[in-house]
Amino acid sequence: MNGPIQLHVHAQAGVARTGRLCTLRGEVRTPAFAPVGTYGSVKGMTPEDVSALGADMILCNAMHLQVRPGADQVEEMGGLHTFIGWKGPILTDSGGYQVFSLKDFVKVSEEGARYRAPLDGNWRLLTPESSTRAQEQLGVDFAMALDECIEWPADRDRVARSTARTTRWLKRCQAARQQPERTALLGIVQGGFYDDLRVAHAQEIAGLDLDGYAIGGLSVGEPLEDMLHTLDVAVPHLPPGKLRYLMGVGLPIDIVEAVIRGIDLFDCVLPTRTARFGQLFTSKGRLTIKNARYARDRGPLDPDCPCYTCQSFSRGYLRHLFLSNEILAPRLLTLHNLTFYQRLMARLRGAIALGGTEGETALAALRTKARLWMEPVPG
Amino acid sequence: MNGPIQLHVHAQAGVARTGRLCTLRGEVRTPAFAPVGTYGSVKGMTPEDVSALGADMILCNAMHLQVRPGADQVEEMGGLHTFIGWKGPILTDSGGYQVFSLKDFVKVSEEGARYRAPLDGNWRLLTPESSTRAQEQLGVDFAMALDECIEWPADRDRVARSTARTTRWLKRCQAARQQPERTALLGIVQGGFYDDLRVAHAQEIAGLDLDGYAIGGLSVGEPLEDMLHTLDVAVPHLPPGKLRYLMGVGLPIDIVEAVIRGIDLFDCVLPTRTARFGQLFTSKGRLTIKNARYARDRGPLDPDCPCYTCQSFSRGYLRHLFLSNEILAPRLLTLHNLTFYQRLMARLRGAIALGGTEGETALAALRTKARLWMEPVPG
Repeated sequence: MNGPIQLHVHAQAGVARTGRLCTLRGEVRTPAFAPVGTYGSVKGMTPEDVSALGADMILCNAMHLQVRPGADQVEEMGGLHTFIGWKGPILTDSGGYQVFSLKDFVKVSEEGARYRAPLDGNWRLLTPESSTRAQEQLGVDFAMALDECIEWPADRDRVARSTARTTRWLKRCQAARQQPERTALLGIVQGGFYDDLRVAHAQEIAGLDLDGYAIGGLSVGEPLEDMLHTLDVAVPHLPPGKLRYLMGVGLPIDIVEAVIRGIDLFDCVLPTRTARFGQLFTSKGRLTIKNARYARDRGPLDPDCPCYTCQSFSRGYLRHLFLSNEILAPRLLTLHNLTFYQRLMARLRGAIALGGTEGETALAALRTKARLWMEPVPG
Repeated sequence: MNGPIQLHVHAQAGVARTGRLCTLRGEVRTPAFAPVGTYGSVKGMTPEDVSALGADMILCNAMHLQVRPGADQVEEMGGLHTFIGWKGPILTDSGGYQVFSLKDFVKVSEEGARYRAPLDGNWRLLTPESSTRAQEQLGVDFAMALDECIEWPADRDRVARSTARTTRWLKRCQAARQQPERTALLGIVQGGFYDDLRVAHAQEIAGLDLDGYAIGGLSVGEPLEDMLHTLDVAVPHLPPGKLRYLMGVGLPIDIVEAVIRGIDLFDCVLPTRTARFGQLFTSKGRLTIKNARYARDRGPLDPDCPCYTCQSFSRGYLRHLFLSNEILAPRLLTLHNLTFYQRLMARLRGAIALGGTEGETALAALRTKARLWMEPVPG
């Protein structure tokens, strides 16, 4: 059965793979990084900016959009694509992760999660059915199943019970779909850091014929090695022809390592959020723009970067804008960081496209680079 | 004697005039409106944005740039144009107006103004010489003479003494110039709201062979009629071949009225500042984007506007961005308001270009429109 998305793998290097994810709103080159536009806007960027810097798809948050402006309203305005002016594919997170992080303001039962939205203090109920309905109302291309997100670390019994609930919720999401030909549904593999639970859950939901699979419950504070180990354990049990999405990850090195382990899709607030705090990713390492050493620096943020910011402005001016709280600063810095991420994805795709051993060697070289990118720019 | 700027008047309608202001960095179509980039950035806009929406020149604030990042540093970075990436002409206000508005944190003497900058709490001295020097260091195309700005209302004696000091300071600015072939110097007509003082001051500084003339001490809280009366009184005494600049003005209706009275150049924070507060200028009147009536409005801000914002986004989405504190909101709204102002200037130029009575009729029609633009959008 063909769903609204199809993954076409063109080349592999080890278990890493590159290809095209075909959607009703165009193709996504994989491995792909989706910039985050929680409220329907990648902060500071127009849709044209996001497209021009090389992103094929974006991520929004269904829960946040349900609170404001409301899924009904977005639907009435012609759906999320029309509302926000983004023509490419959109994936919405269910918002489960955000709801469960409300801690004292969330009450979870088998029915769903009752939570108090910080915006207005009203209690709302998020269920697999309401979440699926809202994402279909938004009219997105990829909906995420509502899963239970628990604290880390958690004991085996708690993880097992929570994972079982996530499976029941996933089936309820499936049953609630009314637009399966338009909005893909992705299931989320849970199981914490218990290998047997991860394998069992991956195998179980792999049998549910979903449009794609995400690996959840990672990047919650655990060491990188634990996350990578979980990918090593879980990914082989996912259907090879379906999309694999690692939610909320991450640093360039995390992305490279995960691509090497067979992941196709990423999203993360890191490039956009760090940009707003004046932290930049560059080919020479991480750069803190407010550093006094850049006050009279006439060079670009990154001499290796083709983005408008690097082609047009000096570090000295960007520092001045940032220190002066000029709103042009987050715009220009976000543009740079997102460009850095998209160029990383393009390099990963290029490396894998070499295929086989040559591809693996190229990926290993990118891994070495990505480690260096984590260091501060040498002074 | 040819200075760095020359005004070429192409057509007149009454005393209104249109033409070209030639500078070493290109031509400015007059009457012109210069968007304000106090700290070297028109808030939220790239230089390309500002240029594309039709602005030929911008205004920055020399005093603010002296405090941060410092005129020395800007000079070292290649001058203000290079630093901020704006290729067209730049006018800097001396910052006198801002310094004098510090009230308890400014001490004025014949030497100059000693002021405490809010940014760092340090006391600094602003003199005609230091101000002229700083503006030349910035390398701008138009420098403003340092004038004394006093409170409104003020009694005749105080205005007379202050105006005399402004003249002495103006002569000191002239004497301090080291780059007269590169940076034009504009004198500022003071004299408060006393016609004889205005006339005398206009006549006096008209004799000083400056590159252009500003009308200062207006838009300080007085009724519009008083401001227009002052223009009626002062403008005829300025040299007809020199630029006439009305500082810090204003609303569209103010601009239309002042153009009708022979003004060539304007600057004001209104379009940019009001945009950030969600107040828009449109061909249907003033629009407050957060108004609940726009929540499900699929139409553009202004159906008559060609700007990217109006061509791309609905009022409903812009309201959502604004209420969500998304930084895309001030960017898109600023783009619209500045476009509205530039289109107004283009219409004024077009009206005057008709010449004579026909031009005056067209200007009168624009005056009627500009009055309507001040009303809220009809509901």
